[in-house]
Amino acid sequence: MSDAAPGFLHLRAFPAVGQEFEPDADEAHYLSRVVRARPGERVTASDGRGAVATLEVLVSRPEVRLRVLARESVTRASVCTLLCGAPEGDRADWLIEKLGELGVAVFQPVHTARAEWERADARRERWQRLAVAALRQSRSAWLLEIREPVALSDWLAQSTPVPAEGERRLLASPAGARAPDAAAPTQGVIVGAVGPSPGFSEDELKRLQMHGFESIALAGNRLRTETAAMALATWWAAADTPAAPRRGAGPA
Amino acid sequence: MSDAAPGFLHLRAFPAVGQEFEPDADEAHYLSRVVRARPGERVTASDGRGAVATLEVLVSRPEVRLRVLARESVTRASVCTLLCGAPEGDRADWLIEKLGELGVAVFQPVHTARAEWERADARRERWQRLAVAALRQSRSAWLLEIREPVALSDWLAQSTPVPAEGERRLLASPAGARAPDAAAPTQGVIVGAVGPSPGFSEDELKRLQMHGFESIALAGNRLRTETAAMALATWWAAADTPAAPRRGAGPA
Repeated sequence: MSDAAPGFLHLRAFPAVGQEFEPDADEAHYLSRVVRARPGERVTASDGRGAVATLEVLVSRPEVRLRVLARESVTRASVCTLLCGAPEGDRADWLIEKLGELGVAVFQPVHTARAEWERADARRERWQRLAVAALRQSRSAWLLEIREPVALSDWLAQSTPVPAEGERRLLASPAGARAPDAAAPTQGVIVGAVGPSPGFSEDELKRLQMHGFESIALAGNRLRTETAAMALATWWAAADTPAAPRRGAGPA
Repeated sequence: MSDAAPGFLHLRAFPAVGQEFEPDADEAHYLSRVVRARPGERVTASDGRGAVATLEVLVSRPEVRLRVLARESVTRASVCTLLCGAPEGDRADWLIEKLGELGVAVFQPVHTARAEWERADARRERWQRLAVAALRQSRSAWLLEIREPVALSDWLAQSTPVPAEGERRLLASPAGARAPDAAAPTQGVIVGAVGPSPGFSEDELKRLQMHGFESIALAGNRLRTETAAMALATWWAAADTPAAPRRGAGPA
């Protein structure tokens, strides 16, 4: 099996405590063939929207049958959305996996003056699978939401002209303030913006600034689009780390 | 061409200012076919060991001929070495690319009780190419040094029993201090340790602690090996960001 801690599932929904049910085909396969859970074992599941349940495996083959033993709701103090220009090639694939592991809430691909997302439709199913795998792997109560690409100008036109109360907007830029000097927000809404591989245009940079995006420098070196997006998410996720560890154990 | 800013080469060596020379076949190909540099243009090159030169393209086809116009030496205030247990599958490939972009000095694969590096020999050439591409991409004066795998116990046996003056040792661990609360070192030597996909053994964790490795938590979620390694490098690289940007412009 993979390096996932055993038995963490993503279920679109699960019934009330005490109820029995059959998970959908994907998760049933994952449970019986990958995790190889056996009757009597307990597994954990999340619906990707903050609900986490402890389940008992009643039957594992040929069909899978589970019972809900307990459930809890997990809240997030801080919610991170990333607006991301198109990286080169298929580099978004691993970016989505990593954003999912780090706990980013929303991945919003943006078309920009210098680069469009050309294969987002074709990659959609794969991206969704990667997000679900990241949820299982990181034992997260939340599933990364992958939005349809929109033009950056449309996103800006539909957003508030300045950040709302409790919202911070950040632009990954080598000309920005050093990340360690900018206290990462530990609550509220964070919207990060990362340029496509050829960079944002001058006009786009001006408009982002006018909409309250503060520049933040994430490394001394020039970073690729997907590296900058991951570095921004890492900076946010580190601040979002609770003083006491949440659950599970792993490399980090 | 790629999203690299035009014309940054990796040359094993270059002659004194004023001298002409022909770069080796790989870089000549990169310059003439990828960057498509033309006679009269200027390009930048680094030797991967801190020397950076401005070069004039004299001839670009069929052979490539360059002249050194200026050279400078770049120093590093902070040097980061990463000891890394084996991740799943070929996930080290992109990790090496990202560590190179972020400016990590040394990648040291370590065999551990629960996981060995099985394909390091077979991947070596590919890893070296990825490190060179990362140097070009990030316009770095330094090339990531990729070491042969060693047993963690051997590495520890050969290291000083406690960190040397100016050295800090850090272990990626969900049980550690929150990364934002631990001031990232901006000078000296940083040695990071990241467990393999099944994690370090209890015995290994004890020995790392005895050798002065401090635990640091990089995210609230459980992270895969390569994600934790990249998060640790990102935390270090953010602190290593100069107050004023170095050179070039890009997504970050």
